[in-house]
Amino acid sequence: MIKQAIIGILCASVILTAGILIGHYGIVKNSPAPSWVMDVAKDVDESLIEKFLSEVDNLNIQENLKELTKVPHMATTAGDEETVQFMLKRWQDPETGLDEAWREEYVVYLSFPDAKNTNKVTVVSPTETVLYTAREKEKSYTPDQDDTEVVQPYAAYSPAGHPKGKLVYANQGKPSDYQLLNETVDLRGTIAITKYGGAGRAAKAINAAPYGVIGVLVYTEPLDMNDGLMSDANETYPHSWYLPPSGVERGAYNSHFGDLLTPYLAAKDETYRIPAEDITGNPPIPIQPIGFEDAYKLICELGGAEVPTSWRGSFNCSYNFGGPGFKSTSHFKNSDVKLDIYNREELKNSSNVMGVIRGSVEPDRYVIYGNHRDSWVHGAIDPSSGTSVMLEITRVLGRMVKQGKWRPRRSIIFGSWGAEEFGLIGSAEYTEQYFTKLSERTVAYINVDIAVFANATLRASGMPSVQDVIFRASKQVNAPGLDSTSVYDNWIKFSNRTSPTHGIIPKIGYLSGAGSDYAAFVHYLGIASMDISYTYDKSKTNARIYPAYHTAYDTFDYSSRFIDPGFVSHQAIGRTAGNVLIRLADSLVLPLNCSDYAEILEDYLNTAVTLYQELLKTKTISMEPLKSAVARFRSAAAHLDQVIRTSDLANETPLKVRRINDQLMLLDRAFLNPLAFPDKYAYRHVIWASSSVGNATFPGLADAFAKAESSNEPKDWAKVHYHLSVLTQAIDGAANTLVDVI
Amino acid sequence: MIKQAIIGILCASVILTAGILIGHYGIVKNSPAPSWVMDVAKDVDESLIEKFLSEVDNLNIQENLKELTKVPHMATTAGDEETVQFMLKRWQDPETGLDEAWREEYVVYLSFPDAKNTNKVTVVSPTETVLYTAREKEKSYTPDQDDTEVVQPYAAYSPAGHPKGKLVYANQGKPSDYQLLNETVDLRGTIAITKYGGAGRAAKAINAAPYGVIGVLVYTEPLDMNDGLMSDANETYPHSWYLPPSGVERGAYNSHFGDLLTPYLAAKDETYRIPAEDITGNPPIPIQPIGFEDAYKLICELGGAEVPTSWRGSFNCSYNFGGPGFKSTSHFKNSDVKLDIYNREELKNSSNVMGVIRGSVEPDRYVIYGNHRDSWVHGAIDPSSGTSVMLEITRVLGRMVKQGKWRPRRSIIFGSWGAEEFGLIGSAEYTEQYFTKLSERTVAYINVDIAVFANATLRASGMPSVQDVIFRASKQVNAPGLDSTSVYDNWIKFSNRTSPTHGIIPKIGYLSGAGSDYAAFVHYLGIASMDISYTYDKSKTNARIYPAYHTAYDTFDYSSRFIDPGFVSHQAIGRTAGNVLIRLADSLVLPLNCSDYAEILEDYLNTAVTLYQELLKTKTISMEPLKSAVARFRSAAAHLDQVIRTSDLANETPLKVRRINDQLMLLDRAFLNPLAFPDKYAYRHVIWASSSVGNATFPGLADAFAKAESSNEPKDWAKVHYHLSVLTQAIDGAANTLVDVI
Repeated sequence: MIKQAIIGILCASVILTAGILIGHYGIVKNSPAPSWVMDVAKDVDESLIEKFLSEVDNLNIQENLKELTKVPHMATTAGDEETVQFMLKRWQDPETGLDEAWREEYVVYLSFPDAKNTNKVTVVSPTETVLYTAREKEKSYTPDQDDTEVVQPYAAYSPAGHPKGKLVYANQGKPSDYQLLNETVDLRGTIAITKYGGAGRAAKAINAAPYGVIGVLVYTEPLDMNDGLMSDANETYPHSWYLPPSGVERGAYNSHFGDLLTPYLAAKDETYRIPAEDITGNPPIPIQPIGFEDAYKLICELGGAEVPTSWRGSFNCSYNFGGPGFKSTSHFKNSDVKLDIYNREELKNSSNVMGVIRGSVEPDRYVIYGNHRDSWVHGAIDPSSGTSVMLEITRVLGRMVKQGKWRPRRSIIFGSWGAEEFGLIGSAEYTEQYFTKLSERTVAYINVDIAVFANATLRASGMPSVQDVIFRASKQVNAPGLDSTSVYDNWIKFSNRTSPTHGIIPKIGYLSGAGSDYAAFVHYLGIASMDISYTYDKSKTNARIYPAYHTAYDTFDYSSRFIDPGFVSHQAIGRTAGNVLIRLADSLVLPLNCSDYAEILEDYLNTAVTLYQELLKTKTISMEPLKSAVARFRSAAAHLDQVIRTSDLANETPLKVRRINDQLMLLDRAFLNPLAFPDKYAYRHVIWASSSVGNATFPGLADAFAKAESSNEPKDWAKVHYHLSVLTQAIDGAANTLVDVI
Repeated sequence: MIKQAIIGILCASVILTAGILIGHYGIVKNSPAPSWVMDVAKDVDESLIEKFLSEVDNLNIQENLKELTKVPHMATTAGDEETVQFMLKRWQDPETGLDEAWREEYVVYLSFPDAKNTNKVTVVSPTETVLYTAREKEKSYTPDQDDTEVVQPYAAYSPAGHPKGKLVYANQGKPSDYQLLNETVDLRGTIAITKYGGAGRAAKAINAAPYGVIGVLVYTEPLDMNDGLMSDANETYPHSWYLPPSGVERGAYNSHFGDLLTPYLAAKDETYRIPAEDITGNPPIPIQPIGFEDAYKLICELGGAEVPTSWRGSFNCSYNFGGPGFKSTSHFKNSDVKLDIYNREELKNSSNVMGVIRGSVEPDRYVIYGNHRDSWVHGAIDPSSGTSVMLEITRVLGRMVKQGKWRPRRSIIFGSWGAEEFGLIGSAEYTEQYFTKLSERTVAYINVDIAVFANATLRASGMPSVQDVIFRASKQVNAPGLDSTSVYDNWIKFSNRTSPTHGIIPKIGYLSGAGSDYAAFVHYLGIASMDISYTYDKSKTNARIYPAYHTAYDTFDYSSRFIDPGFVSHQAIGRTAGNVLIRLADSLVLPLNCSDYAEILEDYLNTAVTLYQELLKTKTISMEPLKSAVARFRSAAAHLDQVIRTSDLANETPLKVRRINDQLMLLDRAFLNPLAFPDKYAYRHVIWASSSVGNATFPGLADAFAKAESSNEPKDWAKVHYHLSVLTQAIDGAANTLVDVI
């Protein structure tokens, strides 16, 4: 029986096994899902973000900054090349580097002072005696400033020349400033001294020339930068973050960005270059920046009537227009001011350093993160704060990739741009060279230039569509120095607005200018972009910007003592920007919100209607088409949002997700019009282009309206109508991309 | 034993069943594939194409044509509105219509003769006696031509005016023609008679005005159109396809396409319109077309020296330059020719009729198929041959969709454009209104305007990338009238070239002009486009085009008797174009070949190097960057082809297929440069823009070189260099989109 039982059991087992095998393999089920089905549906991994946040290290950032600021690294100098090598080494590191990193060179048109003929500003008596010479070099407080590679303060792209004339004070060098001054003073043959702020650098000279002014000085007014403090005995750096008396803000004095000789073409060896005399927007007369120590000596001696209150600064003397020239009681009486400017332009090789992490699921979608690498001097804050943060982000992400723990859904491109200080050249040339590819595939651009202006609060600017992801990321990061407060909660206290949809939220700024490398991405390519930094408490200082900006005092010492001791604000920026980056790269549905865009368009529309509608009606120009377009945009955005909210996208065809993502990615492209602003180089975005009118509304319309209102010429009113039609068509076109795809 | 055996078998069965159940349900397999996995991998269905080909019916096309040509349907007339209603009815048909159809209206600037003041051409004696009056209306041979809606022959956009002067003969009105004429004849105050061909319609007047010519006549030379035949007694229509003596080719005499008042803006009610006086490219002096019957009367009486042989036509008299004016032996001696032109411009509502079939897998990808709907008179050939074919294609496809038997992978958009005859207005306004959406999503544009010029052979033009799919489709269609020969095999006999890659193949033309509605798609949007028709045997006739073109004789009777009796060529076009359409809409990988593009770029490069390199070297302008760019394009194309060939794309993630398809779809966008041709409206494609030089090479380069060679001015050589850089960057940019995506 036992034997029988055993045989029976064995037989039963064999039969059962056979049955199991037949059942498992012999009967067709639905075919199994291919392995990629899971991959394409994957969403952002919150635990990975946690891990990223925990690994971003403030001391690493500090070390990066130390290395980056060892020597001055002005564009195309030996110091710049050192930073190129450093970036390449880090991004090619086998343990913590990226998939690939390389340099891209352009041959660009830069402007330098002549090392052998120092630029000079002097007071010269009628008998040609030099009565006063302005400082040629900033005063040293640390060995950094003695570096022979510290470039003499100068105005890049100022023409060389030796103008000599009576001095006048022209406030900020705005058109209205010269106009007022010209009412009582004959400006022909004069030298104008102006202060930074109010008008662009180039504009101070461009606005002056039509009045016959032959040279311009620019100084940093202590009232605008130092909260009035002026003494380096105990008030300014090295005692505080304030600018010492001899500090001079350098800068590029061109109006247009990108390489000036190769508009819309990447500046390669054999590329066609326009004749230098065809460049527009450069200063037509010599211009030179000086410190307030020298400005004080000059301004306090000026004759003529006293200036209006709003023109005054914090010098303990009367601010006068100038006779023109100095007052008769001055030791400078009858003397001229003379500028000896020896700047010259050179074609130089400038490099971008590029690095990528290839995407796993959508390698043909790019998230770009960038910052420039070149500084004016040591550039500890501008730009190396941003670069040291970028290097820490790439270290953490690079290690996860090298260890096989992570690969983003989309590709990530890092750009360390060259020659930004000369007009955003590296990033502009990059976008010109890769225009089509980048237009078609770039999801977003993140710019972190000056990562930390000060350690009070986050500051963010960007297209309205990126607001949401910045909010989300900043809620997950602790505010530096405040254990239980998020960056978001801290931010909302410093800067907020009431949104009709969201209630009180932090206020993000707009990228309507060309202040950093986002410009080409926003204006030329129409890519959803943002600029992120930590900044100061505006209730505590009136400084235009951190006071050592573009001076020899922007050093590691300055940053570590006065800007961000402990580098915890740098860390917070690394965490916030990195979090945004990961979300853009990994989210199944792109975290770009088109309804937030609608809100701002409505805002702009309301302002435009309030300001312009009544007068336009009298010119038989209707704003109704624009209103309809904005309404159509709003409803299309609401519809797309609803589709996203109500669809189970992880279980639908990846082509549906892709379709929605393409709608979101390409939204800003619809706002581009290459013909709308013929005089503004590379400005094509009809919502965010710069405007010379201060209103928060559509820029082309605002500028055209201001001009027509002032001239009241039919052709100028026609231009207003034209811009209304351009805008209407763009917003309508954008709405068309958001509605059902066919 | 039996019982035991039975029990054993029963037990075994139970165990086996249990095993099967366990095996099938108890052991987890890979999760089953979602239902969409099969859908996204589906490729074009060859049996469906067979079915389509078999259902395209010649008699249906004939019936469509009869209906479409019942009355004249010039743009915006009542007849045009009838065709709008007809299209809508057909496309909204519940059995055979499309998913959706609608009209889109634009307010466009058209030019019409004045019904109350007929345009006149007269010979007027010195005593103001009218000695001769040209026909105001073509002679009737069938009741069609008596329709009161037949528009009087005129030159649209000719200014009104009453110039009177001595007549001269100016050949084709080319710049060289007027130049030669001016060598011996004082052209000031003259009327020039020119023949069609050689120069654009507007150009005949534009070229004349600088010499002081005050009016222009244009006639159809029998040598160029009728193989010399002139008699309506037995030679011309109604006896053959040749133009009767009184036939006059109407036409639009504007140089730029699209609505002339709203450049780059869709012409809606409130859209900004430029002042009419700012329009460029319209005739500056009155111009009027006449038949050869009248031209004969005028030309044969001309005095002055005899023209060169190449200027002569087939009149049985001496062709003379004109004294200026008539010869002294003529009854017209001392008389003037007078033009009384009463044309006037009007803003009119013009409609496109649009229809769609929604795509199932990629609804956000569009294949667009279009033709204009408006004619000059009855337009049986131009454009209704194309429209009747389009309606047959939509009937067959629409029925398959309505019956649930088919839905394309991608969306198909059909466009029945309005006001093409006045300058491609409907299609241009459509592309302006939907610029972003169409740029981002359109896979290809198929234009079938005049479907059948004659019944000898296929003719196709397009981007090189569409060559392959046209070949493939045409191989599957029988050549009309030739049972065992395909359209392809017939075609290759009439027109072929030797390709380095493919050997002897049919020659496809390029779309470098603006001859039909493909223009905006090619030049403004950079979409892979093609134009397909059946045409004549060039060895058998020298006709410039089918002789009834733009005349009152382009009727159903003419078409059915002399162009395509039985409508079998129409059917072949419907089958070929429809086959191309289905392949573009349904193929898993888009049937666009980038290596074929490389071949033509190499061709263009070789021509450019041969023609320009030597001289450019002496100007220190290098062609090396262009050579490198073309080489990079070739290798990138070869690489992408290889990826397509070697990948098992049906089993890979649909995002990989999409990535490749996006590379193919967007290829031509890389060639767009909105600033390269500032004087050529909407021309942005740097490979296919029109050129005034006859060489088959890059147009911007060719034109710039011709100008520089003739002027030898440094600024003109600089322009050559500029165009080289524009081209290099575009081709390099295109190569960048074809290489590995990151």
